[in-house]
Amino acid sequence: MKEYRSYEDLPKIKLPHGQDVYISDSTIRDGSQMAGIVLKKRHKLKIYDYLHKMCIEKLEAFVFNERDRAAVRDMLDYGYECPEVTGWARSNPKDIDSVLSMEGIEETGILMSVSDSHIIEKMGLKNREEAQDKYIETLQYAVDHGLRTRAHIEDITRSDINNFVFPLVKELIEIDPNCIIRPCDTLGFGIPFVDVSEPYGVPYIINGLKEIGVKNIESHMHDDFGLGVSNTISAYWHGANWTSVTFLGIGERAGNAELEKILLFLKQRVEGFDKYDLSTISEFSRFMEDEIGIRIPCNKALVGRNVFAHESGIHSAGVIKNPFTYEPYPPELIGATRQLLIGDSSGLEVIRHKVEETLNKLMRVTITLDKHDRRIKAIQREIHRLYDTEQRVSLK
Amino acid sequence: MKEYRSYEDLPKIKLPHGQDVYISDSTIRDGSQMAGIVLKKRHKLKIYDYLHKMCIEKLEAFVFNERDRAAVRDMLDYGYECPEVTGWARSNPKDIDSVLSMEGIEETGILMSVSDSHIIEKMGLKNREEAQDKYIETLQYAVDHGLRTRAHIEDITRSDINNFVFPLVKELIEIDPNCIIRPCDTLGFGIPFVDVSEPYGVPYIINGLKEIGVKNIESHMHDDFGLGVSNTISAYWHGANWTSVTFLGIGERAGNAELEKILLFLKQRVEGFDKYDLSTISEFSRFMEDEIGIRIPCNKALVGRNVFAHESGIHSAGVIKNPFTYEPYPPELIGATRQLLIGDSSGLEVIRHKVEETLNKLMRVTITLDKHDRRIKAIQREIHRLYDTEQRVSLK
Repeated sequence: MKEYRSYEDLPKIKLPHGQDVYISDSTIRDGSQMAGIVLKKRHKLKIYDYLHKMCIEKLEAFVFNERDRAAVRDMLDYGYECPEVTGWARSNPKDIDSVLSMEGIEETGILMSVSDSHIIEKMGLKNREEAQDKYIETLQYAVDHGLRTRAHIEDITRSDINNFVFPLVKELIEIDPNCIIRPCDTLGFGIPFVDVSEPYGVPYIINGLKEIGVKNIESHMHDDFGLGVSNTISAYWHGANWTSVTFLGIGERAGNAELEKILLFLKQRVEGFDKYDLSTISEFSRFMEDEIGIRIPCNKALVGRNVFAHESGIHSAGVIKNPFTYEPYPPELIGATRQLLIGDSSGLEVIRHKVEETLNKLMRVTITLDKHDRRIKAIQREIHRLYDTEQRVSLK
Repeated sequence: MKEYRSYEDLPKIKLPHGQDVYISDSTIRDGSQMAGIVLKKRHKLKIYDYLHKMCIEKLEAFVFNERDRAAVRDMLDYGYECPEVTGWARSNPKDIDSVLSMEGIEETGILMSVSDSHIIEKMGLKNREEAQDKYIETLQYAVDHGLRTRAHIEDITRSDINNFVFPLVKELIEIDPNCIIRPCDTLGFGIPFVDVSEPYGVPYIINGLKEIGVKNIESHMHDDFGLGVSNTISAYWHGANWTSVTFLGIGERAGNAELEKILLFLKQRVEGFDKYDLSTISEFSRFMEDEIGIRIPCNKALVGRNVFAHESGIHSAGVIKNPFTYEPYPPELIGATRQLLIGDSSGLEVIRHKVEETLNKLMRVTITLDKHDRRIKAIQREIHRLYDTEQRVSLK
């Protein structure tokens, strides 16, 4: 007989391959590409600081204009051991030179688009061979100049994986066996299930990369179809050791897989990931909301203001007896607090609780009421009258 | 050689079991339990109307107070063939009587909590046996009074599935072989992968239900760990034929799996689901935002205002050449429109495009500019100056 009556009773799961996994944050790079968002230098530095507190291993940044370079220099000046600041480059020596010119950056990503749409229409190249030559040449140039490398295999989920991507990657790891291969699900087409083949299957892609000898695999998943987080976890599940994500999932279009969801999954659900600190997540999200203007819906997992708010009768009554009944994890884990609210479907139990709480807070009266007390019932009738006469409106 | 150069080239996937699948919306029921949200009667009717336009098969509603009952009566008066309006009840004859008293409702859900935490702490029952007796008695009562039934197996992902849930479900389908069994991932603990066993594995749960002879399985997934959508799809993938979701994922805490994401997945990615109409999704989401006060982040898949907005140089240049490069599906599919914005990382291509567009719009001048035109470059310099001097701020 299995009984789960507290958070400690809930079994943790194991990653099937048992590998250690790491996180490379892209909030400052891919996140800043979100339309309508402006990240000023002080914002970038503050984000860097939060990532440091969370113990995130790496981040990536643009280094092409003076704004970006000044922010990176200041980050490096902090002297933090983590996150390591890495660069980002298109496939050309000039971009690599920009990265090389930033003292303190030792690794760079290199954009390598692999779908025909991107190669021919976006980049204006003649064919795949021309793209391949360009990518290999740029990687060689980066390696020759002493950089550690990451290959950003863009739009892999709309590409000819067996005929073009895997052969290309084989050549890349011949040049740099430690190259981190980043399959980018650029338009969010990935499917997290094992029985899906190319071009969409995430396990298919990860297994294929492992088979050709790739040592380091870093997923980068977009959320256009709502599968960003599960595709990221699917990649870890099948052996990827890195992922590239953004806080709150900010990014182009529907954005990226959310850093905070991956952190919560690893720390709370999987064995062996106590290395991450989640206690500043609530504060970090308020910073993004207040200072940068990111809109956070009330019901966004972890960071929405409703995540630990309870209003309906059944849920509130449960939480008052024991928060475990209707809370997925303790709010303290992410620096959040619980709220009990009164609403349309609130029961006597929560009204009783709120009355006791309010008497205690405002008048220092400690009293225990029965939920069937006629005064509690009178309050409930009044609440219903307000709803019946449509005098209550949504909070905004 | 595989080439994907247009939406038509992208292969659709198949549900492995090939079953037809259906949707039961819970926006008016579970959605309305979202803290801080008030759904007035006119809101409920409008939501019903949108669900009708989308061709959703069913919805569920509370029928306990006069507000809820009046809304349901009006829905039934519309005379729409879909969605069918179904009821919702806790496990007691009184709640079933409320459903029975609503002429026109022929099916009801019955809440059957199965975790020990819910049975003992929330419901205050002595043990599982007492709960089981109550559930069976209520189901029998509903069947005896001519209702079709759904069993809402609440908190299944923290329950003793093999020792308690499966034996309970066996008894339920003996009473009503057509009973729709709804595994409810109440706190979002479900994991969508095949190699996860009880209590979390969604495929494990679905396969187990099929093995004991359940004909109708309806998933109901919450999003506390960000896996609501993938768990819903995982349930379909392994043989569930129904799902219970809410529009925008509104609901308690982090809410539910999003109706619109499931619709997009079925219609756009899977073979055989042309029965749904997605063309009002954008309008429906604006209604929820403007009239009900739901906050929608700019990067929420399908409905965020950025989903078809392009700002970065690489993406905008791609989209100008061919939207397929950086759009996951045509905006028209969901009644949305494309936007090109100017930002920090905008390139010459998008500035050229905006200048041409503006000249045409404001002065009816049709002109083709070269992106290396010195005037285009001057505009770009001015944009960079604005960013360098930090004169641009985020849109709110």
